[in-house]
Formats: sequence, C-alpha cells, structure tokens
Amino acid sequence: MRICGIISEYNPFHLGHEEHIRKAREKTGADIIICAMSGNFTQRGEPAIFDKWIRTRCALLCGADAVIELPLLTAVQSAEGFASGGVSVIDAAGADFLCFGSETDDKELLESIAAGLSEETAGFKKLLKESLGSGDSFPKARMKAAFPDAPEAACPNAILGIEYIKAIKRSGSSLKPFAVKRVGGAYHSEDMDSPFPSATAIRKAFREGKSSGAFGAMPAGCAQTIERALSEGLRPVFPGVFDRELLYAIRRGGPGYLRALHDVSEGLENRIYKAAETANGRGELIKAVKTKRYAYTRISRVLLYALLGITKEMVAEHNARGTAFLRVLGVRGERVLSILSRVSKAPLICGSAASSGYPGTDIAASDIYALSQDSPPFRNLKRDLTEKLIVV
Amino acid sequence: MRICGIISEYNPFHLGHEEHIRKAREKTGADIIICAMSGNFTQRGEPAIFDKWIRTRCALLCGADAVIELPLLTAVQSAEGFASGGVSVIDAAGADFLCFGSETDDKELLESIAAGLSEETAGFKKLLKESLGSGDSFPKARMKAAFPDAPEAACPNAILGIEYIKAIKRSGSSLKPFAVKRVGGAYHSEDMDSPFPSATAIRKAFREGKSSGAFGAMPAGCAQTIERALSEGLRPVFPGVFDRELLYAIRRGGPGYLRALHDVSEGLENRIYKAAETANGRGELIKAVKTKRYAYTRISRVLLYALLGITKEMVAEHNARGTAFLRVLGVRGERVLSILSRVSKAPLICGSAASSGYPGTDIAASDIYALSQDSPPFRNLKRDLTEKLIVV
Repeated sequence: MRICGIISEYNPFHLGHEEHIRKAREKTGADIIICAMSGNFTQRGEPAIFDKWIRTRCALLCGADAVIELPLLTAVQSAEGFASGGVSVIDAAGADFLCFGSETDDKELLESIAAGLSEETAGFKKLLKESLGSGDSFPKARMKAAFPDAPEAACPNAILGIEYIKAIKRSGSSLKPFAVKRVGGAYHSEDMDSPFPSATAIRKAFREGKSSGAFGAMPAGCAQTIERALSEGLRPVFPGVFDRELLYAIRRGGPGYLRALHDVSEGLENRIYKAAETANGRGELIKAVKTKRYAYTRISRVLLYALLGITKEMVAEHNARGTAFLRVLGVRGERVLSILSRVSKAPLICGSAASSGYPGTDIAASDIYALSQDSPPFRNLKRDLTEKLIVV
Repeated sequence: MRICGIISEYNPFHLGHEEHIRKAREKTGADIIICAMSGNFTQRGEPAIFDKWIRTRCALLCGADAVIELPLLTAVQSAEGFASGGVSVIDAAGADFLCFGSETDDKELLESIAAGLSEETAGFKKLLKESLGSGDSFPKARMKAAFPDAPEAACPNAILGIEYIKAIKRSGSSLKPFAVKRVGGAYHSEDMDSPFPSATAIRKAFREGKSSGAFGAMPAGCAQTIERALSEGLRPVFPGVFDRELLYAIRRGGPGYLRALHDVSEGLENRIYKAAETANGRGELIKAVKTKRYAYTRISRVLLYALLGITKEMVAEHNARGTAFLRVLGVRGERVLSILSRVSKAPLICGSAASSGYPGTDIAASDIYALSQDSPPFRNLKRDLTEKLIVV
C-alpha cells in the first residue's frame, strides 16, 4: 500500500489541482492520495471562498481519497510554519510520499537549495546581507543568496516546496518529497483564458459575478457541488467580508492587543493602529502599512491574526506540540477510513464524533467564518462539532 | 455662588429635561447648573442615539451651564455604581446641590428608604427574602422590603434618586440632594402625544423615520442642532447597530471571555454563549437569556460589556480610584469655565488639550461608536483627543 500526501488549500479546487492529483498518483504509484487542506482561513491571511466542507467534497469528487484538515494555527502561518505543520500532518497520516506542485520539478536543484537554506553558511549569510542591503525583500534576498542562478526556484510554489523539503529533513521524517511541474496559470495569475486558470483567477470571476466562467475552470463534480450549494444559499466569501469586525477588533484592542499577535514586532503594531485611523477595511489597511520590509501577505496574515486573536504564545505552543491527532474531513469510500486508521501514527477524529479534540481557536474561527453567511446550514455555529464525516 | 449638579444621559435632550433644569435652578437658587452626562454609551447598555458632542451642545443650548462627561465605566454600571460614580463627579465639580427627577419629590420618603436600604436591618433582610421567594425580581423585592407602602418609590427615577442619596451618605459628601417631580411621559413610555414625550418615545420616533415628531418634543435649539447634524451626514444610532461586532466578540472570545466580564457570574456566560448560537443580534440574545433572575437591562448591559471588553477587574479598579479628573465637554460662556476651575476639587480636562487624562477604554469606546457612522467628522477616530471644548 503506497500513500501519497499533498498539502493544499483548494481555494477553490480547479482543473490544475485535478491534474496535479492525477500526476502525483501516476508518478508515485500511490494507491491512496491524502490531501491535508486548510480550513476556513488560508495562508494568504484571507477567508477561503467556500467553507472547508464544500472544498472537501470537491476534492474527494475529483481525485483525493481523503481530506485531513490542517489545524488553523498551521494553515495561517507563513511559509516555514505552514510547511512544517503540513509535513507533520502528512507524516502523522502515515504517507510515504509528499507530492507538491512547483514551477520546476528539478529535484536536485530544489534539494540543494533546501540544504543551502537549512545550513545558512557564512557565504549564504554574506550574500543575504548584501541582497537585503540592495533593497530586496527578505524572501527574495534569501532565494538569491541560496541559489543566485535559479530564478525559477524563487517562484511561490517552489519556495513552498523547498520549505517542505527543509521540514522533512528537520523533523527526521522518512517522507519522500516529489515535485510535479505545475501546468497553466501562474499562482497569482488572474488569467481566465488559460486551460488551467489559477484559483486567484477563479475567485476573481466569482467576485465579478462571472460564475459560469469559474465553473468552466473546475472539474464537473466540483462545479456541480458548488452550484448546488449556491442554490441552497451559500455565499462566496471575499477578503473584505470581515472588515467591520477587523476594525472593531483593532479599535477595541488597541496597540497592546496588536503587539501580542503572532509575527508582530518592532512597532508594526503602531503602523497598523495608525493606519486604522483612516483605513476603511483590510484592503486599505494593507495598502497603508505595506513597505518593502512588510510584504503584502505578511500584513494580510497579521490582520487575520487580529481578527481571530492569534497570539505569539498560541503559535509557539502549537508549533511545539506537533500533530496530536488528525481531523478527517472526508474520504472517498469507507475503505479509505479503515486504511487510514491502520497506517496513521496519530488518532483520527472524524466528523461530529469527538468534540474534545477540536481546539477552541479552530471552533471560534469557524464560528466567525459563519458570520459571512445568511442561510443554514452555512451560517450554523459549532459545525466543527456537528458536521458528519463526508463520504463520497 | 450656588452650584447645582444634575446626573444625566440626555439621550436625547427633550422638553422634560429643559423643564427639569429650569426647576432645579429655580428651587435651589443655583447660579450654575452642571450636568454630568453619559458619553456615547448609556446605562441601559445601549449606544446613545447621538454622540456626546451633539448631546452636549443640545444641553448647553437649553439650560445647562456646563457638561462634564461621566467616565465610561461609571456610565454603564447598574444603578448603584452609576449613582456612586455620578455623585463622585458632581461632588468633585464643587457643586452644592444634586438635583434629580423623580416620580415623587417626597424627600423624607426618599431619605428614609435610602436609610433603610443602606442599613439592611434584620427586618429588611427578612422581607427581602420573602419577596424574592414569592418570585419578585431583585430590585422590586428590595424596594418592597425597604418600604412596602410606597409603590411610587419603586419607579425607575426614584430608585436612582435613592441611590444618589445613599451614595452621598456613603461618601461623606456635603452635597444636598434635591428631588424635582417629573412631568410628562413615564421613563419607558413610548407615548408621543404627551406634552413631554420621553427619550424612549423620541428614539422610537427617529427609528421609525418620524423625525418631525421627535423634533417637536425637543427645545428649538436642540432640534436645530440635531437637524443640522443630520443634514451633515450624522446617523441616529440604534441598539442593534453593533450586532455583528457583538456576535463576533462572543464567538471569538467564547465563555472564558464572557466569564471575565463585569456583572457576569453563576453561569450567565454559558447562557449567553449558548443563546448566541441561534440569536442574530442583541435583541434576540436578550430575549433568549432573560429570566426573572436576569432582568432585561442587566443582560443588555452585560452585552455592552462584551462589546467593549469591560471586565470585573476594570470596574473594580475604576470604582476604587474615584474621580481623578473632570472631563469638561462644553460650557455656556467662557466665564463658566473659570468658575469651574475655581470651585472644582479635581483637575479639569477640556477638549483636545490634555490627551493623557483620557482612559484608553473611553477612547476605544468612542472609536467603536464611530463604526456606526459613514461621514466625517462623525466617523472620525480619536475624537476624544481632537474635539475642542464646546462653548455656546
């Protein structure tokens, strides 16, 4: 029995994701594909366009054999923490391979960069300092320092891939990393005419009311699932939907509250608090706070921490704890569940059965997410405790 | 120089308030009437219909000589804390009299009840227990036990008056309490046909878009002030305007957050948290949580504590501190300010001059209140630090 893990967001699931799963299965010869997927909030610091139960169903209908939720505090960390938590989940699930999409599938290149980044040699440190001095952002400077001749390795998915490789090494896991070359639109591309439009492009199409275009970029089972949910009252969720709650949280908490948040240091709390005096929401806040030093995504994530109350202390504790259980959101066929329960190294929590394993932070995040919805069941609370395991 | 103090909310200011100030001046022979007024949130646990600067201007145009703000943590406590904090402010301002409206102006009756309540004799305790046993609410049982033959003393304003008398006694203040018989609509009356419609009736008229009726119940200077502000983009504020922020605060914080709030004990946090699973806002929450034991206004206040993050600890500290300064919102003529500065026992803070004296909680409350507004200056932040002293 060969098991291949994929760390994902599926925000939303599209043709490129289906293709990635197909290739992962083919190239690793896996019998089972396990996807560790973000819940209702994503690594870019945004709410997912559809909730985790709908995104789970889409993935299961289009190639995944099991979907396991990434804990909230893993899902919303920057690349290193995200990768490290994701690898821990895939490893705990008992997988043999970790397969990721990447702008390059040159494994040796990726591994040598990962080694370079892990080691932080004197040469690396010198180049990093020079590059930062010339005005590069930290992630860019780091890539240039580690491998100045491989610009393709500085692309978003490859960076994440390198983080996966580093995390596997660091944790002593026996997972075999495996890069699959990405097809179609680049990660941030908004192009809908590509044969594989990106998730960014699809979210934009939904935001502009062009849902038929969006459905065309998804496998049929996924499009049908979302179409049905929309007809039942589901609302696609866009980043600005919690603007008032965010402003309220900042106004109520003040700089002291912001200072305690994860990844806030060196006066960033004051920049944000000051910007909140005139900014009308998340978008304006990011624009006002952003500098070369504070990248868009970092601010976006910090604002999510402000919305959800995620502190330095919570993240440090979470990272120290490791993967204590696996939260199975859904499986393709009940046989998969029995395989999972045999191979996994951590207890499985399925659906409504075991409320005790869900952290309060994750439950609260789902409850806050539900503020974006008008109709049951989407606006229901405590869905983490009541939704059943999805079996397709 | 005789100075008379009035503890008020003016939410909004109306003909009955003007009449009360007129009588207070006449009966006490006061040269100066100082009103200690709630800021943007009131004792019923609701946002004020108009902000404190507009309500200050109204009061000054219609009889008050000075308006001093009640600190937030005084303004939103139950009768005893509200009265005690209010008396402390009026006393610190150097007033000779404290004049309050009451359903009865029988001073001896009020004072003997106050004495009875303060003493809590064995007879009082026995009657209180019996009355509670027969199913009466606590405030009602307390009044019945203290003075079973005086139903008029159990009316809302008289209860508050008795609390003022108790607070004066307790604090050893030399303030002379003075009851003025209320005219017109009862405190909670929604009747707009009375010659003196209540603030409740006026707020209802605004809510129903019948603003001309509302203006008719106000002195001309007050109606003109509000009319002009509305034409400049001011929005009247109604209790449900922060429903989403409230639900968000409860969902984010959970029972642990609620348990730490002022006046929450014995599992009330769980009742509220449970009710928040289905309730769509403040109104539905109060309805679901209310019992004979937990009165409407108490729940309403606790929900305000949840919105503003007001904990037991904060209130205890505030009450222990006493009145360290007086925040003067406005005066009628600059002469009043110089008189105030001569007679007051605490330093005056006027307008934007002294930011250091404003507690962060009060500033945050004003900033949260501003979420209800769309147009500057009403939606501006840090108005506590930037608005100038109002002089009419």
